[in-house]
Amino acid sequence: MATTLFGFWRSLATFRVRIALNLKGIAFDEVAIDLLKGEQLSESYRTVNPQMVVPALVVGDSPALTQSLAIIDYLDETHPQPPLLPVAPRDRAYVRMLAQIVACDAHPLIVPRVRNYLTDEFKLDEPARLKWIRHWSSKALEAIETQLAARASAGKFCQGNAPTLADICLVSHVEGARLFKFDITAYPIAVGIVDECLKIDAFALAHPLRQPGAPPNPAH
Amino acid sequence: MATTLFGFWRSLATFRVRIALNLKGIAFDEVAIDLLKGEQLSESYRTVNPQMVVPALVVGDSPALTQSLAIIDYLDETHPQPPLLPVAPRDRAYVRMLAQIVACDAHPLIVPRVRNYLTDEFKLDEPARLKWIRHWSSKALEAIETQLAARASAGKFCQGNAPTLADICLVSHVEGARLFKFDITAYPIAVGIVDECLKIDAFALAHPLRQPGAPPNPAH
Repeated sequence: MATTLFGFWRSLATFRVRIALNLKGIAFDEVAIDLLKGEQLSESYRTVNPQMVVPALVVGDSPALTQSLAIIDYLDETHPQPPLLPVAPRDRAYVRMLAQIVACDAHPLIVPRVRNYLTDEFKLDEPARLKWIRHWSSKALEAIETQLAARASAGKFCQGNAPTLADICLVSHVEGARLFKFDITAYPIAVGIVDECLKIDAFALAHPLRQPGAPPNPAH
Repeated sequence: MATTLFGFWRSLATFRVRIALNLKGIAFDEVAIDLLKGEQLSESYRTVNPQMVVPALVVGDSPALTQSLAIIDYLDETHPQPPLLPVAPRDRAYVRMLAQIVACDAHPLIVPRVRNYLTDEFKLDEPARLKWIRHWSSKALEAIETQLAARASAGKFCQGNAPTLADICLVSHVEGARLFKFDITAYPIAVGIVDECLKIDAFALAHPLRQPGAPPNPAH
């Protein structure tokens, strides 16, 4: 069944779905929707995702799946191996909590539509916008680092020795911070897990800077 | 096993967890953390939730569960009846997508810590803050209304004839809009579902205006 991901090289939510597809071994085509050019607002994309945001995943002839966490849960339920959530309810809640610190508390504050609102409505300049992005990016990393330190998982990843939804979200978040050249030295546990993840092809090949359209000079 | 919800009457994420606990028939105590007084930043609350946000759910002697969607998934996995997600993966993805439009795209933009940042860092006044809140509240309602109209579920709720996670999130969102006295007449399908939900005690008794500390004059 043909699988098409509508995304953008720099979109961190698309990055998450790309990692999940790779981990599951699902072949897919990616269609670039250039958020910087406003292509997500085109009539043709509206027919794919009426919310006019990326990512959207079209599997076969069915309507697009949207919202990165919902898409990843769908992939995990329809392609159970390798699992992206642990088995025990408390461990699952821990993984989901870490994922949601990224996907609910931090990322929604820094997406293009919000940055555009800060510019267009509040007339904020680039330094103010960057301060805003850095603030929410750091708050999430602080929260995650605290949780990881308290839990002291014996494994290489956020929960145990195999990557889960938490690692997918953490990688997207830390690599986003690196794209903005933020100082992330205060979060050694989180960064160590991310660097471990990036040794895995499923993560490395999904990286924003390795997608068509990305700038040639790497941020790190 | 003692179950304690740390929340706040006006917190829409706490409202969601309260509904889920009620739907599952789980008895719980609620401890009020007054976000307007900054009680979430106290040292005593930090020991409950190092991220210093509500809600947090403590079950027995275990560490607090945090993030409303992660908590609700945990409750659904440990107390399967009545289910808060449908069975088919596509239906589950649809329910999660609607829930995440609320919990990821809209709500994080209007929580107290963000409103405080707009005031303290950007020196925005109350009309600007309200415009910001109305904007993101409306964007989410537009997206949900479009999805509900396209899907045309035959049931009374977002998906079928029993409330799911989507209804829990939608109720929190629409009731939040009503607390702000926003005009929601453009979203008749969504509002109809919310009013159907509020006929159910599990939803109605969880309402912000029915919690201790809420102002006596109802917003609608």
